[in-house]
Amino acid sequence: MTKEIPTTFAQHLADTAGDIARHYFGTPLDIISKEDESPVTKADREIEQTLRDIIEREYPEDGILGEEFGIKESKNGLTWVIDPIDGTKSFTIARPTFGTLIGLCHEEKPILGIIDQPILKDRWIGQIGHQTTFNGKPVSCRKCPDISQAIFGTGSASQISHNDPQRFDRFEAVTRYTVYQGDCYFYGLMANGFIDAIAEDHLGIYDFIALVPIIESAGGKITDWKGLPKTLHGDSTLLACGDPLIHNRFLELI
Amino acid sequence: MTKEIPTTFAQHLADTAGDIARHYFGTPLDIISKEDESPVTKADREIEQTLRDIIEREYPEDGILGEEFGIKESKNGLTWVIDPIDGTKSFTIARPTFGTLIGLCHEEKPILGIIDQPILKDRWIGQIGHQTTFNGKPVSCRKCPDISQAIFGTGSASQISHNDPQRFDRFEAVTRYTVYQGDCYFYGLMANGFIDAIAEDHLGIYDFIALVPIIESAGGKITDWKGLPKTLHGDSTLLACGDPLIHNRFLELI
Repeated sequence: MTKEIPTTFAQHLADTAGDIARHYFGTPLDIISKEDESPVTKADREIEQTLRDIIEREYPEDGILGEEFGIKESKNGLTWVIDPIDGTKSFTIARPTFGTLIGLCHEEKPILGIIDQPILKDRWIGQIGHQTTFNGKPVSCRKCPDISQAIFGTGSASQISHNDPQRFDRFEAVTRYTVYQGDCYFYGLMANGFIDAIAEDHLGIYDFIALVPIIESAGGKITDWKGLPKTLHGDSTLLACGDPLIHNRFLELI
Repeated sequence: MTKEIPTTFAQHLADTAGDIARHYFGTPLDIISKEDESPVTKADREIEQTLRDIIEREYPEDGILGEEFGIKESKNGLTWVIDPIDGTKSFTIARPTFGTLIGLCHEEKPILGIIDQPILKDRWIGQIGHQTTFNGKPVSCRKCPDISQAIFGTGSASQISHNDPQRFDRFEAVTRYTVYQGDCYFYGLMANGFIDAIAEDHLGIYDFIALVPIIESAGGKITDWKGLPKTLHGDSTLLACGDPLIHNRFLELI
């Protein structure tokens, strides 16, 4: 990697996504008709197609992996990873904790990530070799060496207990309290020093690539449930800790 | 009840609460030191004390029931019911779904309610005889006569399953999908037509009085788990449905 990381370009992608998301956000969800696409489906597809078009025009050799339209193979080792609307349930109820995730990998490794919340106009940027920023200002995860003080976040109890009904209970027994269904916004709040641990499962590649540089460049540790790095071909599990000192403790509980 | 409902005064209370909440929101939570009060504790107390002072000065005969400082008996049948920070966990992680709840009862009956989210600057006002408003515009719950289409909200699975482990599973089996831990903001989203049913337990009086006029004056139905009206001396359970047609169906599942 000798080329500069295209952070300004990635921010342009996030700006473009935000314009589209704001257009559909808060649109009534027709819950009776099955014929029309939902607002979130429309927003998802329109954002991803628009970002793909821009990337293909500006960086034609880069690969693209998106939630909606699959994989374009990379010719130069760089791959953009896009989740147009992370937190679709929140989007459908008009709760502004969803976000657009834009990640960039060099070969297998995530090197750039953006979480953009276009209603609150909150944006986190993480890139290798630079401190994570929140709305332009450097931020850090907080210290939390004692797991009993940790605020723990997850989608829901069932999301992480599907193949081990006691897993959530083990987490809850040793942590301070649990917060639920924060979507990608939870990872931003971890980078800002407000959440200490997050565990999730059933994630697609597009759900986590952008999160890796954001958490790592804010001082946290983010791996799968075996403790392995999250890469372009990682599994569906994720464990993030703001203070690396409690990461092993959580791995033991998994 | 011949006096006019003091809606303008109630909005002044909400403005005052919002100024204080914004002052403490996003303050780092010192998770090591036990000596200092947390930001949410400071905000809670300061908001309630300030609103109590204003009410006692302007309407000295009105009663006051607050989460932090207890009950002042009413001399005229009117009682203000205040939850300075509803959604304290969200407040501690800097997620803007908490809110200040301001309710007014005439004798037992809720007649005015405000949900105020001071970071997003979102405000719902419900009062008897008027359509509920969201940021000044009239709003309505949506129709959802078929429970299989209902988006269901709750704090967490365990919040409503504590004395019946299958209760949450019964709800989840018949509804479209579940959204979690939306705090008072969920009830605003129901009034705006985005959530169809909400069930909660372990609520204090201050947690629900303001919600009653907001849901009812948007066309929804809100009761306890026996189907009884929520009043100044109600129990800790709550069931709200945007479309009254599915309310009985949920009562059967409880």
